Amino acid sequence: MKTINVGMVGYAFMGKAHSNAWMKVAKFFDLPAVPVMKAVCGRHRDAVRAFASKWGWQSVETDWKRLIARDDVDLIDICTPNSSHSAIAIAAARAGKHVACEKPLGMDASDARKMLAAVKKARVRNMVWFNYRRVPALSLAKRLVDEGRIGEVYHVRAAYLQDWIMDPDFPLVWRLKKGIAGSGAHGDLNAHIIDMALFLVGRIESVSGLAKTFITKRPLVPGSRKKGNVTVDDAALFLARFENGAVGTFEATRFAGGRKNANRIEINGSRGTLVFSFERMNELQFLDRTAPLHLQGFTKILVTEPVHPYIKAWWPGGHIVGYEHTFINQAADLVTGIAKGTKLSPDFADGVYNNQVLDAVLASAKSQAWVKVAKM
Amino acid sequence: MKTINVGMVGYAFMGKAHSNAWMKVAKFFDLPAVPVMKAVCGRHRDAVRAFASKWGWQSVETDWKRLIARDDVDLIDICTPNSSHSAIAIAAARAGKHVACEKPLGMDASDARKMLAAVKKARVRNMVWFNYRRVPALSLAKRLVDEGRIGEVYHVRAAYLQDWIMDPDFPLVWRLKKGIAGSGAHGDLNAHIIDMALFLVGRIESVSGLAKTFITKRPLVPGSRKKGNVTVDDAALFLARFENGAVGTFEATRFAGGRKNANRIEINGSRGTLVFSFERMNELQFLDRTAPLHLQGFTKILVTEPVHPYIKAWWPGGHIVGYEHTFINQAADLVTGIAKGTKLSPDFADGVYNNQVLDAVLASAKSQAWVKVAKM
Amino acid sequence: MKTINVGMVGYAFMGKAHSNAWMKVAKFFDLPAVPVMKAVCGRHRDAVRAFASKWGWQSVETDWKRLIARDDVDLIDICTPNSSHSAIAIAAARAGKHVACEKPLGMDASDARKMLAAVKKARVRNMVWFNYRRVPALSLAKRLVDEGRIGEVYHVRAAYLQDWIMDPDFPLVWRLKKGIAGSGAHGDLNAHIIDMALFLVGRIESVSGLAKTFITKRPLVPGSRKKGNVTVDDAALFLARFENGAVGTFEATRFAGGRKNANRIEINGSRGTLVFSFERMNELQFLDRTAPLHLQGFTKILVTEPVHPYIKAWWPGGHIVGYEHTFINQAADLVTGIAKGTKLSPDFADGVYNNQVLDAVLASAKSQAWVKVAKM
Amino acid sequence: MKTINVGMVGYAFMGKAHSNAWMKVAKFFDLPAVPVMKAVCGRHRDAVRAFASKWGWQSVETDWKRLIARDDVDLIDICTPNSSHSAIAIAAARAGKHVACEKPLGMDASDARKMLAAVKKARVRNMVWFNYRRVPALSLAKRLVDEGRIGEVYHVRAAYLQDWIMDPDFPLVWRLKKGIAGSGAHGDLNAHIIDMALFLVGRIESVSGLAKTFITKRPLVPGSRKKGNVTVDDAALFLARFENGAVGTFEATRFAGGRKNANRIEINGSRGTLVFSFERMNELQFLDRTAPLHLQGFTKILVTEPVHPYIKAWWPGGHIVGYEHTFINQAADLVTGIAKGTKLSPDFADGVYNNQVLDAVLASAKSQAWVKVAKM
Repeated sequence: MKTINVGMVGYAFMGKAHSNAWMKVAKFFDLPAVPVMKAVCGRHRDAVRAFASKWGWQSVETDWKRLIARDDVDLIDICTPNSSHSAIAIAAARAGKHVACEKPLGMDASDARKMLAAVKKARVRNMVWFNYRRVPALSLAKRLVDEGRIGEVYHVRAAYLQDWIMDPDFPLVWRLKKGIAGSGAHGDLNAHIIDMALFLVGRIESVSGLAKTFITKRPLVPGSRKKGNVTVDDAALFLARFENGAVGTFEATRFAGGRKNANRIEINGSRGTLVFSFERMNELQFLDRTAPLHLQGFTKILVTEPVHPYIKAWWPGGHIVGYEHTFINQAADLVTGIAKGTKLSPDFADGVYNNQVLDAVLASAKSQAWVKVAKM
Repeated sequence: MKTINVGMVGYAFMGKAHSNAWMKVAKFFDLPAVPVMKAVCGRHRDAVRAFASKWGWQSVETDWKRLIARDDVDLIDICTPNSSHSAIAIAAARAGKHVACEKPLGMDASDARKMLAAVKKARVRNMVWFNYRRVPALSLAKRLVDEGRIGEVYHVRAAYLQDWIMDPDFPLVWRLKKGIAGSGAHGDLNAHIIDMALFLVGRIESVSGLAKTFITKRPLVPGSRKKGNVTVDDAALFLARFENGAVGTFEATRFAGGRKNANRIEINGSRGTLVFSFERMNELQFLDRTAPLHLQGFTKILVTEPVHPYIKAWWPGGHIVGYEHTFINQAADLVTGIAKGTKLSPDFADGVYNNQVLDAVLASAKSQAWVKVAKM
Repeated sequence: MKTINVGMVGYAFMGKAHSNAWMKVAKFFDLPAVPVMKAVCGRHRDAVRAFASKWGWQSVETDWKRLIARDDVDLIDICTPNSSHSAIAIAAARAGKHVACEKPLGMDASDARKMLAAVKKARVRNMVWFNYRRVPALSLAKRLVDEGRIGEVYHVRAAYLQDWIMDPDFPLVWRLKKGIAGSGAHGDLNAHIIDMALFLVGRIESVSGLAKTFITKRPLVPGSRKKGNVTVDDAALFLARFENGAVGTFEATRFAGGRKNANRIEINGSRGTLVFSFERMNELQFLDRTAPLHLQGFTKILVTEPVHPYIKAWWPGGHIVGYEHTFINQAADLVTGIAKGTKLSPDFADGVYNNQVLDAVLASAKSQAWVKVAKM
Repeated sequence: MKTINVGMVGYAFMGKAHSNAWMKVAKFFDLPAVPVMKAVCGRHRDAVRAFASKWGWQSVETDWKRLIARDDVDLIDICTPNSSHSAIAIAAARAGKHVACEKPLGMDASDARKMLAAVKKARVRNMVWFNYRRVPALSLAKRLVDEGRIGEVYHVRAAYLQDWIMDPDFPLVWRLKKGIAGSGAHGDLNAHIIDMALFLVGRIESVSGLAKTFITKRPLVPGSRKKGNVTVDDAALFLARFENGAVGTFEATRFAGGRKNANRIEINGSRGTLVFSFERMNELQFLDRTAPLHLQGFTKILVTEPVHPYIKAWWPGGHIVGYEHTFINQAADLVTGIAKGTKLSPDFADGVYNNQVLDAVLASAKSQAWVKVAKM
């Protein structure tokens, strides 16, 4: 059996989600190659060793350059904070490794374009972990679009709503500092819904944006009276014109009380409407405007049947899957794509586009006027 | 323009709902005859006069026998407590008046059968106010059944849940006394879901029932320390076998916290499923088992479009109707049926059947064994 | 009993909704004065006579100036197309009549300001029929805001979605011509959600907007091959900054397939979140951020209990009300406000503000930059 | 670190779910002992070897008696069809092994009682895999019950609805043969909701049941014209009286079109109501009758927060879990219970009770009268 040796960099939240995926993917999917958990890399030797031991990584590295230099690694899987994505990805590509990178691809479009150039030049396979494309319900949405069931798209209504920093006593963690995080809800959440819209509708031509920080000073550490400035957005909203004529609203916030991970999208087309919310990720709503008039309405499809994307690998009908399954599904596609030479999705070009939209929104928020998304 | 002169007996909750219907029906519907609010009858002259004045009844009576004796009344509309239904209806029929009677038709099946015999003998038109048949969503459900979209029925799952007497301090009102009310939740609520099942599925062949009183003593009057015995059921549940082979669960209760008027029915057939709940009375859920597999799911039909039953008389699409509209829709059908001589639904025969099922459930609750519903 | 004599101008869709309200209001509400349906005015004598006869208006006029001149009319109720609102309202005010006007108040803010000046000068009572404030669920929302249960508002997420002109063969009705209608979805639908945001949150300081026409040519008449230009928006979207620091998205469209009358608003505050959709108008969702953590979630309040706004006038708990009840509730408040001299809501000042926001959005859509809402 | 060596018998659907649980449990939970996947047992050597290799079981056996005889196994995990549960469990107990057994515990109550006697005599730890107790939402429901938030229970409304054998061409698989399966939907699905009611409410005192087979003949093999008799129920319904005075309806069916795995329960108590449906397994609905009246309603708790049962082991708030997590959560409790000597839940005594209720329902369906559940 063919194998693909994985070397993963980073072992925090995403490192856990990816490790789980690498551990499970070949147990549930019939794959043309088997991923091998060859090495995990992190700066703190004891911690990374404990992590490797728990998750079954065969070895550890504490310097990603050494990981990339290893002959027994085929694929570099990048789970680090955004600021180190490009350096690692470019070096990996130069070393001839395939690269899978967490989102957003770059700190900005300029950063991302260098990464794209590197993988193109090296002709290595590349993918960005916009995992929501692998929610079975969103994969089904894509199938419906491709079947022509939505028709010409008029509206996109996307929002990614959370509420985890609403408490003013929540401290000034690195995600709230621009120097480290780049942006706030914008790069974290808008990046996802921009990708979902790209996946299902197409590219955005221009944007008008707004960024807002509701709580501008926070304790430096939990419980402290000393406060520092929040230097990123708490929320970022924008209007969009798509290249195909559709218009859209996008909204990312960490200040929507009660919305825990409400990653939502609605698409209205000439033939049908699609509605999705991650908090009910096993469901897709579809309205068919070609159905008999007295029967028209939103059909809540429980996307857990063997006929639905990815589900054959999992459980019988009606047996719900969860957040972590999106990574496992994507890992299956990644392994298959590398083994068979088929297209990976989304790839670094999609990642560059995503950074370009993010940049355009921030530019618009600053200029208070519409801004065109850069052409690729 | 042809007219139908209405004489209504009773002016409490149902009297209000019927008056509103008689007042509005000709304003929204194009009818073959116009109902005239000729006279309302109640025992307390001042109160009934005030009611007549408010609602536009042209005259009052304090004795229903006098009302029935009037030459200028065509239709007797009975809104009194159950115990007086049969006397009024039988006298009205003998006087050659058409009769519309609130539900349940009789105190028991024996009572109801006498009423049926009277209207048959007198050949007068007759109808029972099981108003939920005129919820547009349930009328649409009936259309779907008639179109063959449900197929052979396997299951009926009906419940009518309320919570208005859960407080132990709620007093011993007449509805909780067997001598006056006959039964509790059973005759009040099960009567409705039995009729809905008759409307959509057919007749019940046998039942196994259970009646329960959770709070057996209550204050005689609000705030009083003196208590009396509750002599009716707080809840009545039964299993049913239908003549066509379907099986069902039925449940009526006034002890389901948070369920205000949850009149619900689900029907599973070989070709489709229907789901309705009155608390969202403008919606019908329909699952089509013949749809493409990857698109199957429950379609939530917003039953407010011109193509839907009764809606052309009302507002544009998406403009919700309410509880009172069921009475107005039924009044429109009643006027049309009388004027054109077409069938009224449900009629006294349906009312007799309903009382027979109610009786069978109580008999079963007593005997602790299955009981067959009487044949008509 | 004190009376208020009503003279209504216009007898189309809104004329029907208002007539129904005037007919019913004193039957369900205990009012300090009784409205009398004194006269209805329309240009076509036969049609307006038939309308008056059906609905019980005591007399007719064919010239609104004659209606205004009558001594026996206290209140002028304006249900005509927008272009005639100001002339009628100003004349009525000058004649010392109270004025209730359909929305939007003016063709634009300049128009509306003249109306406001007139009623102020004449010191007559004035109200705009933004009927959604009288949805019991939205009145309850206001109560929750006033009780401090929402706290500082961060986000408003409003959309009013319909789909009735998606068919390209739908003809070029007057609502699609700028000369007559002023704007499309914008003035028709955004006006409502702007008022709801004003009611619940406060004033908007600046906007960035987008207007879009998806189908630019339509048949002049149904079935015709001859086509004319659509000169209004099919959809209008905007971002908003509120004076109190909140940010919002607003969207009005007639191209959202399956959304029939989806008038929706969500408000996220520091203490709680509110969610409403008109298609389930008897429900309000409320999330209380001060509840015990393990119990927090969206509470779906069925707003049909006696403790809820307006419901005591209607039916027992759980017995749904509909679209038309919003007008009856508002008529009750109008009659009470006039009789008691208490504040009417929304009044012409609120109507002027509404037109100012509408204007600012269209200006922004043209300039492609943020525009400040005019100060009053 | 302490270890618990697991020997698993059976490797079909449940074998896969359990293997996944044993593989993952120590990676997500901090446990007082580590389970070791020591051996898996199945009759076909090649197949069980392939299974062991895929899932990481250290060794294989083809005879469960040999597995039980091994010194290096601490816990026997039984995933075989029901007919072999008792023989394996009793032998394992006699050999001093702890036993975890799939549900239902025995073929009938008599069978199950022997199993209980064996584990009691051997004083080994024992548990039944009624996995739904470990749905976080149902664990939270239990917490709410224990906190007194439901009060005295009046109603239980439970149903487990599926639709996978509605097609008359679906063949006569072993699950449809009484000799092998014991019963149909009854033992498969009612067993679960009986356990959930036990968990949340308490014991049932007596039942009145009905069993129904809608399609009595099916193809012997897929596509065959030869048909055989279906000898189990397609659906089984019953009314229940609980020992504490509550009444309930229970329904299990494989003929509810569109219901894929609709394992649902509603509980109405004097202080609150709980509602759960597995198809939305990350949600629990709770109605608090002690809340301010104008705020009462069903709160949809998204049970994905760190404060909720089991969630700390998983992902951040709002990141949904799935079916398989119930087994992992239960495995964590099993390991903890064995290591610490704390109570396992549900245990074999609960399993015996469950079989007794199942037996009583079938006896009632035969006698057409109420039957008391056997006392333990």
